[in-house]
Amino acid sequence: MDDIRLQLTPLQADELRNMDRYWRACNYLSVGMIYLRANPLLREPLAAAHIKRRLLGHWGSDPGQSLVLVHLNRVIRRRDLNVIFISGPGHGAPATLAHSYLEGRYSEIYPDRAETEEGMGRLFRLFSFPGGIGSHCTPETPGSIHEGGELGYSLSHGYGAAFDNPDLIVTVMIGDGEAETGPLATSWHSNKFLNPARDGAVLPVLHLNGYKIANPTVLARIPHEELEALFTGYGYRPYFVEGDDPEKMHQWMAATLDRCIDEIQAIQHRARREGDLQRPRWPMIILRSPKGWTGPREFDGHQVEGTWRAHQVPIADPASNDESLRLVEAWLRSYRPDDLFDEAGKLRAELRALAPEGPRRISANPHANGGSLCKALDLPEFADYAVDVGEPATRYVSPTGVLGTYLRDVMRRNMTSFRVFGPDETASNKLTAIYEASQKTWLAQIVESDSDGGELSVDGRVMEMLSEHTLEGWLEGYTLTGRHGLLATYEAFVHVIDSMFNQHAKWLEKAKRELRWRQPVPSLNLLITSLVWRQDHNGFTHQDPGFLDVVTNKSPDVVRIYLPPDANCLLSVADHCLRSRDYVNVIVADKQPHLQYLDMKDAITHCTKGIGIWDWASTDQGHEPDVVMASAGDIPTMEALAAVEILKDLFPDLKIRFVNVVDLFRLMPASDHPHGLSSRDFDSLFTTSRPVIFNFHSYASLIHKLTFRRTNHENIHVHGYAEKGNINTPLELAIINGIDRFTLAIDVIDRVAGLRGVGDHAKERLRGLRIEHLNYAHTEGIDSEAIREWTWKA
Amino acid sequence: MDDIRLQLTPLQADELRNMDRYWRACNYLSVGMIYLRANPLLREPLAAAHIKRRLLGHWGSDPGQSLVLVHLNRVIRRRDLNVIFISGPGHGAPATLAHSYLEGRYSEIYPDRAETEEGMGRLFRLFSFPGGIGSHCTPETPGSIHEGGELGYSLSHGYGAAFDNPDLIVTVMIGDGEAETGPLATSWHSNKFLNPARDGAVLPVLHLNGYKIANPTVLARIPHEELEALFTGYGYRPYFVEGDDPEKMHQWMAATLDRCIDEIQAIQHRARREGDLQRPRWPMIILRSPKGWTGPREFDGHQVEGTWRAHQVPIADPASNDESLRLVEAWLRSYRPDDLFDEAGKLRAELRALAPEGPRRISANPHANGGSLCKALDLPEFADYAVDVGEPATRYVSPTGVLGTYLRDVMRRNMTSFRVFGPDETASNKLTAIYEASQKTWLAQIVESDSDGGELSVDGRVMEMLSEHTLEGWLEGYTLTGRHGLLATYEAFVHVIDSMFNQHAKWLEKAKRELRWRQPVPSLNLLITSLVWRQDHNGFTHQDPGFLDVVTNKSPDVVRIYLPPDANCLLSVADHCLRSRDYVNVIVADKQPHLQYLDMKDAITHCTKGIGIWDWASTDQGHEPDVVMASAGDIPTMEALAAVEILKDLFPDLKIRFVNVVDLFRLMPASDHPHGLSSRDFDSLFTTSRPVIFNFHSYASLIHKLTFRRTNHENIHVHGYAEKGNINTPLELAIINGIDRFTLAIDVIDRVAGLRGVGDHAKERLRGLRIEHLNYAHTEGIDSEAIREWTWKA
Repeated sequence: MDDIRLQLTPLQADELRNMDRYWRACNYLSVGMIYLRANPLLREPLAAAHIKRRLLGHWGSDPGQSLVLVHLNRVIRRRDLNVIFISGPGHGAPATLAHSYLEGRYSEIYPDRAETEEGMGRLFRLFSFPGGIGSHCTPETPGSIHEGGELGYSLSHGYGAAFDNPDLIVTVMIGDGEAETGPLATSWHSNKFLNPARDGAVLPVLHLNGYKIANPTVLARIPHEELEALFTGYGYRPYFVEGDDPEKMHQWMAATLDRCIDEIQAIQHRARREGDLQRPRWPMIILRSPKGWTGPREFDGHQVEGTWRAHQVPIADPASNDESLRLVEAWLRSYRPDDLFDEAGKLRAELRALAPEGPRRISANPHANGGSLCKALDLPEFADYAVDVGEPATRYVSPTGVLGTYLRDVMRRNMTSFRVFGPDETASNKLTAIYEASQKTWLAQIVESDSDGGELSVDGRVMEMLSEHTLEGWLEGYTLTGRHGLLATYEAFVHVIDSMFNQHAKWLEKAKRELRWRQPVPSLNLLITSLVWRQDHNGFTHQDPGFLDVVTNKSPDVVRIYLPPDANCLLSVADHCLRSRDYVNVIVADKQPHLQYLDMKDAITHCTKGIGIWDWASTDQGHEPDVVMASAGDIPTMEALAAVEILKDLFPDLKIRFVNVVDLFRLMPASDHPHGLSSRDFDSLFTTSRPVIFNFHSYASLIHKLTFRRTNHENIHVHGYAEKGNINTPLELAIINGIDRFTLAIDVIDRVAGLRGVGDHAKERLRGLRIEHLNYAHTEGIDSEAIREWTWKA
Repeated sequence: MDDIRLQLTPLQADELRNMDRYWRACNYLSVGMIYLRANPLLREPLAAAHIKRRLLGHWGSDPGQSLVLVHLNRVIRRRDLNVIFISGPGHGAPATLAHSYLEGRYSEIYPDRAETEEGMGRLFRLFSFPGGIGSHCTPETPGSIHEGGELGYSLSHGYGAAFDNPDLIVTVMIGDGEAETGPLATSWHSNKFLNPARDGAVLPVLHLNGYKIANPTVLARIPHEELEALFTGYGYRPYFVEGDDPEKMHQWMAATLDRCIDEIQAIQHRARREGDLQRPRWPMIILRSPKGWTGPREFDGHQVEGTWRAHQVPIADPASNDESLRLVEAWLRSYRPDDLFDEAGKLRAELRALAPEGPRRISANPHANGGSLCKALDLPEFADYAVDVGEPATRYVSPTGVLGTYLRDVMRRNMTSFRVFGPDETASNKLTAIYEASQKTWLAQIVESDSDGGELSVDGRVMEMLSEHTLEGWLEGYTLTGRHGLLATYEAFVHVIDSMFNQHAKWLEKAKRELRWRQPVPSLNLLITSLVWRQDHNGFTHQDPGFLDVVTNKSPDVVRIYLPPDANCLLSVADHCLRSRDYVNVIVADKQPHLQYLDMKDAITHCTKGIGIWDWASTDQGHEPDVVMASAGDIPTMEALAAVEILKDLFPDLKIRFVNVVDLFRLMPASDHPHGLSSRDFDSLFTTSRPVIFNFHSYASLIHKLTFRRTNHENIHVHGYAEKGNINTPLELAIINGIDRFTLAIDVIDRVAGLRGVGDHAKERLRGLRIEHLNYAHTEGIDSEAIREWTWKA
């Protein structure tokens, strides 16, 4: 790769000097945040009393990040670029905070941290201070859409932000620690999914800072040739900027950034003006600079700059050790604060002039406050996609198949602000109708046979890569910049992104509850499908409905779980979710053909209430029931209804109430979740004393977790997935986990006082049927057709 | 890269012909498994009645995998190699099953599937059949240590198996779909952690099969130069084998495998005889072969072979469509079964002679039944590492710091069968004593400054890479091949491997419960540290104790959770876990200095019981208590004890019982978990009617999930993490989540009937103290030293 090296010196002396001063200002602020509780501009000699009592913060990656930010400002101004910055390195917030403070944006949002000596002092004091400013790029950080507390997602967030934002350049700084994570390692391949005409650009800057917390990084310790080969192999054109001499590094970085922007603009020109949509070789930068650059060379007999010892607080004890105090002072003064800030404490005007203005400032770019740009989706009338149900429980339809037709038209009406994501499973998950609106994005090679059902196109809007991490990261980046989407994935493997879900929920919680300046962003919609109860053929590894347990641990302000029992309910739920803001909506719905129950009018009513009695399935009209049969989830609902049919036939006088739950949080007390039912409403549905047989989609204990405070809780008996499975038929899988019609009916007989004894013979017949069906499955390899029939056959 | 190409033809005509026949036998069996319920050797014309009623299975990757297996047999035999095979491609079991059946191993384990026509018929019939054989390489599969139901972990499993197995060659077949996942993408870098002298070799075979379920794969659709650069960049020497002509492919694969084994042996020779421990460029193979190779070229007007249509069952309807039936028959007959199997249905002798014998067979290699090779660790007496506690709750010690000294000596005594894993956090997690026994494995570049505390060595046994996925994969591979280890990780980020934990627990469950031939393997030990309650400074992203919820969803046969309250308890628990087999042991223990409570004798007693009353902290001696104060977890225990101190001071006559829980599953009913307490025992600890204030480490609802069936459940009031956090001090974080001493004491006053009213004044003072401490934290940035004192200060 021919680099630019140092033959180019694009910066004139003046510009170079001022850019270096700006960089020093960033570095000064970063160090100040870590150490100082007072005396922010060092206008008096540094004393122990000026030092925070607990030193927290991470110095290591700040100077490198600040270097990039300062140079981004230059190209933004010179070319009027639209740039956001994603900070990947762990705990690198001081650089980003410093930069936003110097641009004035920080003080606009937080006037108590004004561009004055006092405001600077407050910024310093609050950083990593109880009740104060976090050490990551938290939602409180202007210009951030990526907190980065957990590592691995910076680059996928960056690509997500760039999709459908043709004018945007997303600069993603990737720590070489973060680069070791799996999610980051595969997200480099996102360049095969970025369309240079329609999408913006992503400029990755891999920061070879050299060290993690306590170890060197892998990428910093492989030969140059391997490094270059690796990123060439990932499909980039890597440009190296390496060294520790500030002056040389400024020239080299300026020349490199110019070159990268030139290339980006040339690629976009070719794509947009000349129609060349070949996958380009996008530029990237590999910045190798010392960890803790410009900080103390050594301390206490150990090298600090350029080692892992510079990761956090390089000099640990200035409050108690006078020599250390002097070192910290010398370090701070090495940036010459008086040369950078005026008498009042504001960045000097000639330096401020280096920053862009208004919304061109990285810290004020509206894309990083995506809600401010967000437009509601133009949604078709979901009721138009209704399934004709006829008599309840007589027709089989694939719920996700129906959803696909609706999503197809959502896509057609929102061709620049809506995408569907899936790990190679969109077709498997029966959402294929979407392809009528848009094919799958594919910038890698397309071959002739792809024209036969491959559905690949450089213009596609369906995003499929076999990496749940990358997809989730893209979707997060897409929604945080104000656009809409849905990720459909196999239920068992949504656990792959448990941790990403946790982090996104935490982001939403902070942004929504504590930050009025952050506008609400579109909800992140997760369609969980290929459900446990139809993973009978894929076996045990594909059976895990436990994601809901993870979700229920997050703040009730931001999480929602829906289990629509049929296709019309799914449509109603999907419409609701696509209109919502600031949630993670988890929709659990299977792809296989299932019985349908509610016509659209009833579905809307039911989903609006989120929970309700199905009179047509109940036999308690006007009376206190003998038993409540409850269900949540499509397959458990079918089995519960079948159990009711069996019971009706066996015990015509039994008063059964059938309750179905769509909105799972309805079960929680109203005090614990905004969707929670009042005690009165809960008790009126579930009674205060009758047995409740609850057939649940997931692990049974979750229902107990949600209902343990309810009056009738001790009578709630939950059936759910019991971690039993192998290669089974659907009914067999239901039976071995005890959510099948026979087991439910037996449980009712056992729980209803009036049936004890009377029902013994029936129980025996039901047990016999269970065995008979298992035997049939083991002989024929399929469930008996008889189980599709509603009639109770003895 | 200079390839071998076709100038080499290592196979003589006879050998070539027979290897091709062996390969055809594999392919025949693979197709038979997918389609046939009878007529396994096609000794009569294929009829609809011979076809399974539900066709399940995945044909696409089988022929490529079988090709590699057949050629591995050749090199094993010629060079007497010790080889295991890991099958990464999803649902690729038919190839592996076929291979193990042809080697006779399958029938040794499952005599009902003998090497006869009848046995073959049964194998076919049971494959992907209810109650039968899975479509992944499940634990039931001889020779498998990697099920692969969830994709991404084949290569890290392979490296884990190779560590400390110097004679072993682990061939890992990686699907190009799987290769898109994050965990797989970063696991290529495992080569920087493999020592050629001490460890075995890993030979990756990337299978460019071209397609996933419904899409092309990224790696199959980038130019050759990028592909080669990518793997050069990952540090390998890639050899390409590409084509679809069987004869040429046999020659090419044979020559390539010879070359790869030569290189592996040369590398090992240089390392072992010449002491050259430079990181070598290990060979790898990139096999590009058509998906569904040798299967139907087309069907129903669509190309099948070489496209995603060959992924599962290429011809869908032979039972109902006569033309399809003829196609399937022709496909099966194209392998000429009579040429492959003798009259009885056994592989012909000249072909069987191509397979290795006994334990050299891949399907019978003892490393893939690791328990059979497993030796117990030589453990030091853990009590020798005891902390001198003195009076309970008077001294501060880092529990993991103490554990580090014990683990150091475990390592010293087991220098070829024990490793410690951590994502760049071993030092942060205070396990640094381990480095006295062994440094960190590092085969990448080592520089001069590393000698100052870098602790890096090619001979290291501490495994640190910033990828929880890779570490967990290594540890799984290491334990499944019979060795011992422990992974220590930050609590919040153990969620990164939720899904890997789920899959490993499922593997253990099947292996333990259903497969007598699989010997028990060492437990997988997860030390969860840097706990939520001391992530006050790292903020909200680092606060997530919800992994325990994921764990409790898995089978009680294989999961254990321990929350040792202090260092001596941690030692006792660790010793227990390191001796155990076939579990995932989750140990929750913090790294910061904490108060110590139990001397070693009491710690052993307490941990053996797993739950118990702490008399020294209780005031109910000999009486029914007024209130039970319970705790689980180190920080919650400290706060609960402090609350007791406060209450003693306020209400000297109050009878408080203090219960501490180490073994979390003690709380479950005995019927639900083998560690569960009987009702009588539970009630004798928690009473049947008194208020129980339970201070819990994780989310409160988990305690309800475990105890909802207990007599006194409605009186159990749990305090736990409530998803509230930011930059806080430790006490502040406790207060805002309500697990602090003041809140607990207030709760007791509210719950104990006799204190209502009487305690109003005290409650006010306690509330005042809460505020006072928060104010102090927000002024000084630290907790007041006063909170370390036990005395109740009003």
